[in-house]
Amino acid sequence: MITDRLIEKIIETQNPTCVGLDTSFDYLPDGMRAGVADFAGVSAAVLEFNKGIVDAVCDIVPSVKVQIAYYEQYGAAGLAAFYETLAYAKSKGLVVITDAKRNDIGATAAQYANAYLGVTETNGASAQAFPSDFLTVNGYLGSDGILPFLERCLKYDKGMFVLVKTSNPSSGELQNLKLTDGRTVYECMGDMVEEWGKSTVGKYGYSAVGAVVGATYPEEAKVLRARLPHTFFLVPGYGAQGANAEMLKNCFDANGLGGVVNNSRGILTAYRKRGGGYAEAARAAALDMKADLISVLGEICAK
Amino acid sequence: MITDRLIEKIIETQNPTCVGLDTSFDYLPDGMRAGVADFAGVSAAVLEFNKGIVDAVCDIVPSVKVQIAYYEQYGAAGLAAFYETLAYAKSKGLVVITDAKRNDIGATAAQYANAYLGVTETNGASAQAFPSDFLTVNGYLGSDGILPFLERCLKYDKGMFVLVKTSNPSSGELQNLKLTDGRTVYECMGDMVEEWGKSTVGKYGYSAVGAVVGATYPEEAKVLRARLPHTFFLVPGYGAQGANAEMLKNCFDANGLGGVVNNSRGILTAYRKRGGGYAEAARAAALDMKADLISVLGEICAK
Repeated sequence: MITDRLIEKIIETQNPTCVGLDTSFDYLPDGMRAGVADFAGVSAAVLEFNKGIVDAVCDIVPSVKVQIAYYEQYGAAGLAAFYETLAYAKSKGLVVITDAKRNDIGATAAQYANAYLGVTETNGASAQAFPSDFLTVNGYLGSDGILPFLERCLKYDKGMFVLVKTSNPSSGELQNLKLTDGRTVYECMGDMVEEWGKSTVGKYGYSAVGAVVGATYPEEAKVLRARLPHTFFLVPGYGAQGANAEMLKNCFDANGLGGVVNNSRGILTAYRKRGGGYAEAARAAALDMKADLISVLGEICAK
Repeated sequence: MITDRLIEKIIETQNPTCVGLDTSFDYLPDGMRAGVADFAGVSAAVLEFNKGIVDAVCDIVPSVKVQIAYYEQYGAAGLAAFYETLAYAKSKGLVVITDAKRNDIGATAAQYANAYLGVTETNGASAQAFPSDFLTVNGYLGSDGILPFLERCLKYDKGMFVLVKTSNPSSGELQNLKLTDGRTVYECMGDMVEEWGKSTVGKYGYSAVGAVVGATYPEEAKVLRARLPHTFFLVPGYGAQGANAEMLKNCFDANGLGGVVNNSRGILTAYRKRGGGYAEAARAAALDMKADLISVLGEICAK
């Protein structure tokens, strides 16, 4: 079961993180950017950079999160590099999270679900478009926009993370509004997530339907951690967005489980602060982040 | 201004519709599907089919809506066909709506905005990934997830449609909940859309920031039409999803303006009911839909 596997890798590495491959071309060292002029060239350079990052961190982190927007802006060539990035990370044993925040009504959601969590069938043959272990999704459309993803999670042992309380400054404009039943919108979304996941709870108590909960909102995270006991959290906001280890303690349970914290820019561009090669600097930054989290969480262990 | 242009094409054709190129491979005639085995083959067949549809309807409809999920499931090859579909529809003078429901926090939303509404820059050169006139987006993350799209709308004369009240059966699970201030969640989202668009209102009174409002919910549509006087509606739900012309009258103003109604399956697969070639059948179905809408709306004219 995929969430169990993620948890086991977190325990093994003592590192509840994912490295965010939100690889802006601007992040690449000058030498890798020089002379690149078109989408195919950019995509090849980004892929090469990503492989260097994956090689540098694959034995010390459990997972990567690949943000598809950074590849979509380079068209079909960018998406070919996205595919290769997923495949390379997978080949190195990492749990692969695609951050795409997909959402649509039933029949169309099923196409997205095929693309990321399932298979696409054609005249009896089947293949995978962008194979991922987890996919982020947006639940604004309600259950029938989520169930096609859940079906593939059950059939192919995959997982998803639904946006609940996002890390950005204006997330409260909608998400923190109060409903007449006393809940906030994010609590309501969280309750739906807990419900969607209930048939998928694994041996460590967490389901395959997780929630995105920003580290930048520790009070909301505390409410959600208590309210959603079976929901694993994907936690953005650490580092460049302003959250520190103390702030994201609330996303975790007493055993240091319950979430995986993303860091993108702080790891990808670590070489600019530290000097040296980008890959070595990324590894050093990932180890620093691990130490920072463990200083707050203590040893991570199974219940 | 893009919404003005869409409105002028609607008046010119007397047809407030878009043909939805949600081209499932299953929709293609047997002869176009035979012998196709891989993503490249499927994508080529889908593109050929789309071109036939565009040729058949481009003088009688103002716009097409291309649903990207149907292309993403065929990986990079599918997205190359998606690009070619957008370009072909554009070359035939159609207003091109990409239905992708994208959403993310600021810096990442900017990458999506580059991909669909703006340009992607590399070492001083710039190119367009998936050029579209309008993009559908999801506003769950609040203003700073929307403003990067709005910036490109202003800079490049583009538009967007934000999900407000979606057409699917479970859309009310979140969208119809009541807030303590007396509004529903969909009214609150609608109010934000009206606000985001206010600096972009064109000569016919409608802004570049539209709303997705499902024809399947006529009561909600009535509320929103009155509440959001400057917001143009993209209206899914006609035909296969169960809404008829009478139900979607509420999406329009007294001049028959204010919305564009999508139909995908009913047009793409019309040949199965009508016989004959798929393109001719699509044209006949599009003309029937036009007649159906006009019978309810009357003549469409500028204010």
